[in-house]
Amino acid sequence: MSSETVTVGAYLLERLRQLGVKSLFGVPGDFNLGFLDLVEDHPDIDWVGNCNELNAAYAADGYARVNKKSIGAILTTFGVGELSAINGIAGSFSEMVPIVHIAGVPSVSQQKNKPMLHHTLGDGRFDAYLKASQQFTISQADIKDNITAGSEIDRVLTDCITSARPVYIMLPTDIAYAKTSSAALSTPLKPTAPEVDTAVQGFVLDEIEKLVEAAGSEVIILVDACAIRHGVEEETWELIKRTGFPVYSAPMGKTAVPEGYEKYGGIYVGSLSHPEIKEKVESAKLILAVGSLKSDFNTGNFTYRIPQVSTVELHSDHTRVQYALYPNVGFKELLPKLTARLHPLESPSGAVSVPPFVANVPAPADDPLGADVISQLWFWPRLGKFFEPEDVIVTETGTSSFGALAIPLPRDSIYVSQILWGSIGYATGSMLGAALAQREIGLKGRTILFTGDGSLQLTVQELSTVMRKGLNPIIFVLNNSGYTIERHLHGRERKYNDIVNWKWTSLLDVLAPADLNPPPKSYTVHTKNELDALLKDESFAHAKGIQLVEVMMDKYDAPLALLRQAELSGKTNKYVGDYV
Amino acid sequence: MSSETVTVGAYLLERLRQLGVKSLFGVPGDFNLGFLDLVEDHPDIDWVGNCNELNAAYAADGYARVNKKSIGAILTTFGVGELSAINGIAGSFSEMVPIVHIAGVPSVSQQKNKPMLHHTLGDGRFDAYLKASQQFTISQADIKDNITAGSEIDRVLTDCITSARPVYIMLPTDIAYAKTSSAALSTPLKPTAPEVDTAVQGFVLDEIEKLVEAAGSEVIILVDACAIRHGVEEETWELIKRTGFPVYSAPMGKTAVPEGYEKYGGIYVGSLSHPEIKEKVESAKLILAVGSLKSDFNTGNFTYRIPQVSTVELHSDHTRVQYALYPNVGFKELLPKLTARLHPLESPSGAVSVPPFVANVPAPADDPLGADVISQLWFWPRLGKFFEPEDVIVTETGTSSFGALAIPLPRDSIYVSQILWGSIGYATGSMLGAALAQREIGLKGRTILFTGDGSLQLTVQELSTVMRKGLNPIIFVLNNSGYTIERHLHGRERKYNDIVNWKWTSLLDVLAPADLNPPPKSYTVHTKNELDALLKDESFAHAKGIQLVEVMMDKYDAPLALLRQAELSGKTNKYVGDYV
Ligand SMILES: Cc1ncc(C[n+]2csc(CCOP(=O)(O)OP(=O)(O)O)c2C)c(N)n1
Ligand SMILES: Cc1ncc(C[n+]2csc(CCOP(=O)(O)OP(=O)(O)O)c2C)c(N)n1
Ligand SMILES: [Mg+2]
Ligand SMILES: [Mg+2]
Repeated sequence: MSSETVTVGAYLLERLRQLGVKSLFGVPGDFNLGFLDLVEDHPDIDWVGNCNELNAAYAADGYARVNKKSIGAILTTFGVGELSAINGIAGSFSEMVPIVHIAGVPSVSQQKNKPMLHHTLGDGRFDAYLKASQQFTISQADIKDNITAGSEIDRVLTDCITSARPVYIMLPTDIAYAKTSSAALSTPLKPTAPEVDTAVQGFVLDEIEKLVEAAGSEVIILVDACAIRHGVEEETWELIKRTGFPVYSAPMGKTAVPEGYEKYGGIYVGSLSHPEIKEKVESAKLILAVGSLKSDFNTGNFTYRIPQVSTVELHSDHTRVQYALYPNVGFKELLPKLTARLHPLESPSGAVSVPPFVANVPAPADDPLGADVISQLWFWPRLGKFFEPEDVIVTETGTSSFGALAIPLPRDSIYVSQILWGSIGYATGSMLGAALAQREIGLKGRTILFTGDGSLQLTVQELSTVMRKGLNPIIFVLNNSGYTIERHLHGRERKYNDIVNWKWTSLLDVLAPADLNPPPKSYTVHTKNELDALLKDESFAHAKGIQLVEVMMDKYDAPLALLRQAELSGKTNKYVGDYV
Repeated sequence: MSSETVTVGAYLLERLRQLGVKSLFGVPGDFNLGFLDLVEDHPDIDWVGNCNELNAAYAADGYARVNKKSIGAILTTFGVGELSAINGIAGSFSEMVPIVHIAGVPSVSQQKNKPMLHHTLGDGRFDAYLKASQQFTISQADIKDNITAGSEIDRVLTDCITSARPVYIMLPTDIAYAKTSSAALSTPLKPTAPEVDTAVQGFVLDEIEKLVEAAGSEVIILVDACAIRHGVEEETWELIKRTGFPVYSAPMGKTAVPEGYEKYGGIYVGSLSHPEIKEKVESAKLILAVGSLKSDFNTGNFTYRIPQVSTVELHSDHTRVQYALYPNVGFKELLPKLTARLHPLESPSGAVSVPPFVANVPAPADDPLGADVISQLWFWPRLGKFFEPEDVIVTETGTSSFGALAIPLPRDSIYVSQILWGSIGYATGSMLGAALAQREIGLKGRTILFTGDGSLQLTVQELSTVMRKGLNPIIFVLNNSGYTIERHLHGRERKYNDIVNWKWTSLLDVLAPADLNPPPKSYTVHTKNELDALLKDESFAHAKGIQLVEVMMDKYDAPLALLRQAELSGKTNKYVGDYV
């Protein structure tokens, strides 16, 4: 950027580009059309016109999860568009995914004079959408002039990358084209690092070191969501390799650690864990927990049995050593120092063996549902064999997010699932963004989506955008006649858990661009043998085009972890209807 | 209800029943499943499981518009569900449609202890969704105990029917089944009538009467949105018949007055009006405006040329006579008194002729787009001939909402469109609710949806619910290769206004229940002759099953009113992109 001024729109796009954004999601609307010209003409940022705004928000979220060096970005129009997206933005807040939500809004003078424009509430409140947005974004820029526009944009984008949470920018139609100074653009934005008090940090390191020594060989590392979201996967990996401590992850930390690593023991999820994993984790003398996030579904309904006195919790902005809280001691700075301090472990600790994290495909003959039926018990381990390095695997709230947990994923694969927010329909929208990011960063694996017949109905149209963008995911639709997860929570035979059985194998044909080449392919598999044959078929496994597989499953079949979770939540969260 | 206590859930359902609700829209989720048992078992309220929550909100809105004696009702689950619906609720707020949004939320003790449940923001804020909701509902009940639950429900439902705006109820899982007194249920809820000061009212009546007399024969009545929303269509009709004054309506007042009435002159929409209508309205000595709502799209971009000194504005909660404002003088009470006061007009006024509101089908040979092409110019008048009494006609923001304006609709037809809020995708969701309500209240016409190829993509899945419920609408999809309305606002040739061309005629087959009988039928029409033949075919016009007609149109073709509107908004709302 050589000129001294740029339009505010161009300023914003340059900041997005610097932050790694190559795809901008959203839907046009008359309050963002002017800005969209700048987007469409931008050499490095591609406009992904979505079918609707909620899907766009999900896609931006999936994009940011896979392209970890970038934020996600979505553009909507005043009122109708931005509010349609808000559940997706709230999900990104909850799950800590850095997203910028840009809403094209009326001109500054219109905002002042408050005419009764379309997309308004009719009562003159032009700030209602901002107020709603404040609940679900960490920071907001209500841009009102071209002079402060640049610094406002910088402020919220800095908050976005610092907190790994969504931010909101109101871009008035006129300001998008007003000129602002481009001087700041030569300095890329950086996360605001907490002021490190080296004395405190040193004290904390001493404390941790003492505990590690006292624990002797019996230390484990437990990796969770915030390690991924706050970008310390590499730092954590260094710690793991140097110490040789056994490592486990929580569901939301899945794939933060290579799941094929010899000392990786699998997923710890409280009382839902595999008994061996449960025993190993809960009997450790010391647990170094990196980025833990203790939500119900991430902890087996709050059934962690790890005494706080044996825990060191490393977080993005604080550390907890046993009962002591150290604010402002964040893991980004602490982890490398900790790694340097801790001795590479020799025997006996170096030799501590970790039961390997494997999932064997059960023999069809042993399957309680019979040798033919595609059971959850068989399906997930079988798919485990199908996955390859650099695959991106997306699962949906429902049987799939529980089923996939128990399956080790290959090196450099990325796992995307919304375990805390749990909004169904997310997986399909998210997959679009994930697949785009995967292509952009050059991961060579496939994009593989698992979704339920219920969930897919919420956001199905976005498969059209997937095809429009020439993406080639494999989509497994688990057809189990409705909301199976809910049947196990409540209302097993209730009609409200039934859905319409769509003709899934014709779906892609309807939504595809006429000239899509190769055209979409769809399959239905009824038996283990059919699915097995399909997975083994090279022309399926490494196809050039998009494919959808309808997997016929039993209406009541669910992964073990889901059955146990349902039992536990039934206890805390009584459906009183059962008792009257 | 004979027992002294009922569960809070049953209390709420009984209130809904009393208010006319026969269909409850929404999506299940674990925080509302217990309550859903009560719904599913209710003898008079039918659960409409929607494909997603936004569609459910649109459906509830359409339902309330057609069943004017009822409110609309939607049930969602905590966070993920309720936020997905919020754009629909905001639309109902903006357009003044009475909706109750019930969110199933965690138990009271969970709300107090704030565990990190799924569907939470992960930071302990359990009130964020309520706060967001406060922006878009007129009143909220944060139910926290069974004792006050009944009165809280009554309070917000009363606000709902008084203000014709959405309200929000948080129903905790445990409270749904807690017992509460049923005593209040024997007194049905009523709108809170403003306290009428008869002295002021009499004074206002005198003032109006004087103005009417002074204006002699040159008085017109202009009917708008709030006449429909606040339920004074009958009172207005009495006034019209007694006085014989010519009557016009604004776009949002369409079908408030029977459009075949001999003294009905058509739609007044500022400078976009037909010249004859514009002249008649703007030269009237006095205008009695009933329920006017002066939004951009409802006034031809604020181009009313009606001097305030010649206007009497009758509103639900105030009256304005020339420049004088009279708070608390509402039209529900005032209109009947005004009607009684005004003399039935004899000649010459009785003889004032109103140019009839007609739309002649242009001769194909005269069509600038050629004799074959289905032009907007030809399409709407031709459809005008197809409409029948008691049809419900739903149009979408885009070419269809502008095109339908100029067409007189038959007696007892109902016109549904979202002219102020203008959220695309609305029409399809709304049509589901409208069709259900139409069936429930026994209107004998058809449900006819007009939507754009762009708009339908936002909410397409809800056609599945339409078929599941055995509804038989006729769906016209205007296939004009994208966002035509936007092309006229900005970016005529821009890619962001393009969409994927779906295989529209296969769509219903994919989304239909397997056993739908008769199965869905789909057609594509390319020429005037083809469409004409189809419309004349009795087996199409009065089919037993659902039908979809893909209407091939030119990419740039738009109704005249839209072209003029685009020109006007281009002036006020500059897309600066055009000028750099
Ligand atoms: C937006 C949203 N609405 C509703 C829910 C409640 N819900 C959670 S899981 C589920 C059913 C999912 O069914 P399906 O996708 O078929 O999964 P499966 O049958 O494999 O369990 C529902 C309705 C939700 N989580 N999010
Ligand atoms: C939820 C929402 N998103 C975006 C918009 C902006 N918008 C208004 S009209 C329109 C295009 C509609 O296209 P289509 O349905 O094909 O109508 P037509 O081509 O007949 O004009 C868009 C994107 C909106 N009004 N609402
Ligand atoms: Mg299912
Ligand atoms: Mg179109």
